[in-house]
Amino acid sequence: MKISALLTSAGINVGLCVLFLSLYSVLRKQPANIRVYFGRRISEDHSRLRGAFILERFVPSAGWIVKALQCAEEDLLAAAGLDAVAFNRMLVFSIRIFSLAALLCVLGILPLNYFGQNIQHHRIPSEQLDIFTIGNVEVQSRWLWVHCLVLYIISGVACILLYLEYRHIARLRLLHLKRATPNPGQFTVLVRGIPKKTKESCSSDVDDFFTKYHASSYLFHQVVYKVGKVQKIMTGAKKACRKLKQFTDTTVDQSCKAGTYRCCLCGASSNSFQLLPTDEVVQSSGKTDLKDSTLITDNEECAAAFVFFKTRYGALVASKVLQTSNPTKWVTDLAPEPDDVYWSNIWLPYKQLWIRRIATLLGSIVFMILFLAPVAFIQGLTELEHLQQKLPFLNGLLTKKYMIQLVTGYLPSVILQIFLYTVPPIMMLFSTLEGPTSHSERKRSACCKVLYFYIWNVFFVNVVSGTVIKQLNFFTSPKDIPVELAKVIPVQATFFVTYVLTSGWASLSSELMQLFGLIWNFIRKYILRMKEDTEFVPSFPYHTEVPKVLLFGLLGFTCSVLAPLILPFLLVYFFLGYVVYRNQLLNVYRTRYDTGGLYWPIAHNTVIFSLVLTQIICLGVFGLKESPVAAGFTIPLIILTLLFNQYCRKRLLPLFKTFPAQDLIDMDREDERSGRMEHIHGRLHTAYCQFPDTEDIQLEKIQIDGNGGEKNCSPGESKGKETREEQQPRRDELSHPTLKGLPVSRLQNAVRSITFLIRLQKRGLSR
Amino acid sequence: MKISALLTSAGINVGLCVLFLSLYSVLRKQPANIRVYFGRRISEDHSRLRGAFILERFVPSAGWIVKALQCAEEDLLAAAGLDAVAFNRMLVFSIRIFSLAALLCVLGILPLNYFGQNIQHHRIPSEQLDIFTIGNVEVQSRWLWVHCLVLYIISGVACILLYLEYRHIARLRLLHLKRATPNPGQFTVLVRGIPKKTKESCSSDVDDFFTKYHASSYLFHQVVYKVGKVQKIMTGAKKACRKLKQFTDTTVDQSCKAGTYRCCLCGASSNSFQLLPTDEVVQSSGKTDLKDSTLITDNEECAAAFVFFKTRYGALVASKVLQTSNPTKWVTDLAPEPDDVYWSNIWLPYKQLWIRRIATLLGSIVFMILFLAPVAFIQGLTELEHLQQKLPFLNGLLTKKYMIQLVTGYLPSVILQIFLYTVPPIMMLFSTLEGPTSHSERKRSACCKVLYFYIWNVFFVNVVSGTVIKQLNFFTSPKDIPVELAKVIPVQATFFVTYVLTSGWASLSSELMQLFGLIWNFIRKYILRMKEDTEFVPSFPYHTEVPKVLLFGLLGFTCSVLAPLILPFLLVYFFLGYVVYRNQLLNVYRTRYDTGGLYWPIAHNTVIFSLVLTQIICLGVFGLKESPVAAGFTIPLIILTLLFNQYCRKRLLPLFKTFPAQDLIDMDREDERSGRMEHIHGRLHTAYCQFPDTEDIQLEKIQIDGNGGEKNCSPGESKGKETREEQQPRRDELSHPTLKGLPVSRLQNAVRSITFLIRLQKRGLSR
Repeated sequence: MKISALLTSAGINVGLCVLFLSLYSVLRKQPANIRVYFGRRISEDHSRLRGAFILERFVPSAGWIVKALQCAEEDLLAAAGLDAVAFNRMLVFSIRIFSLAALLCVLGILPLNYFGQNIQHHRIPSEQLDIFTIGNVEVQSRWLWVHCLVLYIISGVACILLYLEYRHIARLRLLHLKRATPNPGQFTVLVRGIPKKTKESCSSDVDDFFTKYHASSYLFHQVVYKVGKVQKIMTGAKKACRKLKQFTDTTVDQSCKAGTYRCCLCGASSNSFQLLPTDEVVQSSGKTDLKDSTLITDNEECAAAFVFFKTRYGALVASKVLQTSNPTKWVTDLAPEPDDVYWSNIWLPYKQLWIRRIATLLGSIVFMILFLAPVAFIQGLTELEHLQQKLPFLNGLLTKKYMIQLVTGYLPSVILQIFLYTVPPIMMLFSTLEGPTSHSERKRSACCKVLYFYIWNVFFVNVVSGTVIKQLNFFTSPKDIPVELAKVIPVQATFFVTYVLTSGWASLSSELMQLFGLIWNFIRKYILRMKEDTEFVPSFPYHTEVPKVLLFGLLGFTCSVLAPLILPFLLVYFFLGYVVYRNQLLNVYRTRYDTGGLYWPIAHNTVIFSLVLTQIICLGVFGLKESPVAAGFTIPLIILTLLFNQYCRKRLLPLFKTFPAQDLIDMDREDERSGRMEHIHGRLHTAYCQFPDTEDIQLEKIQIDGNGGEKNCSPGESKGKETREEQQPRRDELSHPTLKGLPVSRLQNAVRSITFLIRLQKRGLSR
Repeated sequence: MKISALLTSAGINVGLCVLFLSLYSVLRKQPANIRVYFGRRISEDHSRLRGAFILERFVPSAGWIVKALQCAEEDLLAAAGLDAVAFNRMLVFSIRIFSLAALLCVLGILPLNYFGQNIQHHRIPSEQLDIFTIGNVEVQSRWLWVHCLVLYIISGVACILLYLEYRHIARLRLLHLKRATPNPGQFTVLVRGIPKKTKESCSSDVDDFFTKYHASSYLFHQVVYKVGKVQKIMTGAKKACRKLKQFTDTTVDQSCKAGTYRCCLCGASSNSFQLLPTDEVVQSSGKTDLKDSTLITDNEECAAAFVFFKTRYGALVASKVLQTSNPTKWVTDLAPEPDDVYWSNIWLPYKQLWIRRIATLLGSIVFMILFLAPVAFIQGLTELEHLQQKLPFLNGLLTKKYMIQLVTGYLPSVILQIFLYTVPPIMMLFSTLEGPTSHSERKRSACCKVLYFYIWNVFFVNVVSGTVIKQLNFFTSPKDIPVELAKVIPVQATFFVTYVLTSGWASLSSELMQLFGLIWNFIRKYILRMKEDTEFVPSFPYHTEVPKVLLFGLLGFTCSVLAPLILPFLLVYFFLGYVVYRNQLLNVYRTRYDTGGLYWPIAHNTVIFSLVLTQIICLGVFGLKESPVAAGFTIPLIILTLLFNQYCRKRLLPLFKTFPAQDLIDMDREDERSGRMEHIHGRLHTAYCQFPDTEDIQLEKIQIDGNGGEKNCSPGESKGKETREEQQPRRDELSHPTLKGLPVSRLQNAVRSITFLIRLQKRGLSR
């Protein structure tokens, strides 16, 4: 590819970017799109923009960029959580290191490469891109020490910056831990693998065990029922009902008035329904009718339990210690935060998990290998002859010069991009099958999978299948890998530059524009004429964006010394990404769950991997160029980088795996001293709720007939002094994300009837 | 190599074995050798055999074999600890699986291999050994499914047996944990990385920290001083003094009578000495003289501390939890048992450890690579032409046929054997440099290193350097490794058979004979005329014997289906080993420390590795023989074996890494209920002692002038009610192994003077 082709591609992308950014700056000012571009703001502030028509609304502006840049880290932390800050720091780190790299490489190495051989130079625009890579430097050149020195500087500065960032995130994580609002997850342990006893109920087993072995800190527990199918039916019915309700809003509104209690589906009077739930509640709360209560526990098999402790330290200890001599029984882990719990997985038998993990591992590997097909096809496109062979109908088109440039410079990346869109959902599916107990864990696991996928399929396979060695003999000689990579990377740099332009820049623009959201919003509003969907605010897709940023980091490091022409483009990407992602995090996405900065270790490891890979490739290149001095100096650099990584693992990684006892104990003491502990313990009773809907009915019941219904949501063998007054506030805060924003009474009416139907069905089954 | 050469080799070894065994059965009955052959018995029972001259003593007998076989597992456990039982189970496992394998392979596969091709067979003795391997089976043979089936049976039975053994050892480990005599290590946590504060002493820092954060279970602590140099001088002086004393026993005996206190070295009166220690004791116990006490803590820098807890569970919790937000400070681990503490390492700065670990890792890798030279040389010897080229003076010798057979069949293994003798000490040195805090950990780490060394240098390098591929292109094509191994293993089987004969059988005989011990005993007694060295009883060299047994297991598995001729020889080795090792464990070696069965996971992993390697090699062989069915069926076997391993890791391995809380709490409660806890707490005060000698003096001081000297050995800020009555019994049980058996008063006299010299020296240094 020539410089001019690259410039064509760059020009197209710059144009697209400017267009999208301008479009965005106009669209965001339209009141109709407010839910698309300010989802988080609206869901949190409940404020609305004025809808007046003014000219300013149709003039592109750059105010949003200023706003995004002005936002301090504390604001970002408050608005979008620690994960957002960690992600932001990845971008900051990339900007810093690649600014330095661009400065050094463009000023120092690019001229060296360009004048590396005594050849006749053309005018720069018609120069081949290869001439700017290290491939153009003479064998046994005296100037290779410059490359080596730059490699040292980049590696050294990258390590220092990495360490500073790591420490910073670790400190933030500790602060996050100590934040003002107490987190119920810190007091709670998720127990799985509860052994079955025939006599007693599972709930009393849990109670017995923890009363016996953790008496000093055990508070109470709450059983998680195994409700796969029922829960699914319920969720489905709930959704159906909501949809129905939205369409026929006015009709139902009349029939479903408070007091008359008519079923939303069939319209029958609800007198007969009202009796049954009351019966059940009485049966399960009063222990007089033993037969019926065992019936209930039989139906809803207990699979796990949340165990609550008096102190954070108590919970930590219980989660860290091997409980019994059978490591697959009474498995304890710190519970995820209530909003973070992934209820569909939490009741999975613990014994299944290791098999699930292995199966998904195998699944992802197979998927990665199968993906080779499209990648190989795309790589064919970068070479014109292949393209003409495979798609003969293009022959007519490809006679014009600019078409050739467009097709070779732009088309391959676009196709790859489209294929890559299928990857995150599939990896998310794999991660779901793996059986994580929290949303954040699921997303983090998917993030790792997507990252491996990107590194493998975008980087290695492109490198390998791209050029010389198509016969897969690449993998048969590990000792030659550095040399082969050294041959290939400078050549493949062209592809990576276009990849940065298309995948990087364009994907940022589309992220900013929220095309999907925009279109869907339009369809809802003007075609389907549905009411505004207030409850749905997406959470940030870390599992797609983190791997993207890290992949570009990998490209930057590996190409920096060898083919520095990529760096300016990359730097623009990171700058743009910094602005765009900050804007999106502040305005669009809502943070419902947070890993507490656990994405940073992934980023750290990836950067270290990138550095070491770069160094190994450079070693190969220096070897090829027959420069024993440069090659010799690279080996200690590799060792030093690995030592640095080891130091970080010792010094900082443990903080991301557990919590320090000292801080937890200090927090416990502080809470006890200030008397907040009682309040926290009170709140624990209602923190985790497996069946939020059923509970809502019962909450209403409490108000109506004053009879406590503690079956599903509140803890089984409640030890605390749970009072009505404490449960009361719960009503206003309806924590379930999908229910937010709906009027409570209407929702209760709708769900009550569905729940009753399901109960009827279950009764039918058990008889 | 021909069958006849093999038989020559086997004949020599059988002869040697019988000779050594007979010799042993005579020598063990000689009273002069009692310390060599019954070290453990004597040190524990303090009994002596009668010294009368009877004919029976000179007649070889097999009584010891019967005794070794009759001994039940409980007796072995009681006599030699859990590690001995784990080692014994390795042998039992090997015997079981290789009995089955020998049965299947010799009856089923050997004939198939022998008649695999339609060739003219010679008389069996002059048949080449290769003809008994799978190499002789025709390509596309119909009979390869038999090999595959046998592989399935062996793998399946091996997994079942492995699981049963693993579970058995895990159960024993739990019982070991619950054994009657309470172990101080369970109540103790070793704290390293104590942060330095300028103001306060280290001891009060430790006290403050644990009083603050582990108040409910913290008992007291004991500081470990950083005394590298002083300690070394002291130990050296002590040894010198003891040697001196042994030679000039009678002279010193007169001058060093109790009451007169004369220095053993210079003979000066000890009045002047007696004053100083008293002074120091007063200074350190009374806190009035602040200047002097800080002087002492400055001199003896605190590096670590033993922290004692009220309950086992308290100690476990403190050891499992990350203490502070800096993971390199206040690092807590369960302390080793008092006899197991490796005092020279315990004060190493925690921050150094990771560098030490990496350095030793690199060191061992370099050592392994350097060792290639002798191995390559030895491999040359198995081929006669090479030998004649390299050692031309042998030409005259090598004309005779039996000499050729001897040299090719026997010499290589002997030379390799001699080289291998240097490996365990060097690996032990590496493990020491790594910085383990206990003897058992050090030995276990050395065991792993030796094992890796054996597998690499004896198995792989022999295989690779042995035949076809000498140009190291073996390592350049990973995808061909199974095929290459498949080519090589059947050919190399010859070498492995002779290796089993020489290294296996002969080393067992020499282990039984204790040649070194025997000779040294003879020299001491009859040439140097020293007194009996009662204190030295060796502990079992697990780090040499475990890898040996596991290596033979690996050889057995890999050769079983491919070259089954090795199995009978191997089986004899395991049977002989079973008898010999049991005998040695019961009679010769003393168990001073125990890992609690931690050698078993090593064995388990090695067997799994061997199985998978075997299966991969078979896959290669089946591929070479163009039998897609057999090859196809081997792949699921590999996956199943790995799944089984994963299951064991989940199900049983955690029990070898930590202790279950349930059992610890039950034990704590039992002890509290029965009132034993007070007694246990009392014993904790004197359990760990960094300077056993100094303490002895102080113990004597207590008796003489009734003044408590709590400086070195007893805990710094003692919280317990430590009374004289509790310390008193300590005097009779002088726990330090090197001091056992010496009269206490004489020892005290000797050491007192040395200690004083050192104190003088230290005073001089600090002024």
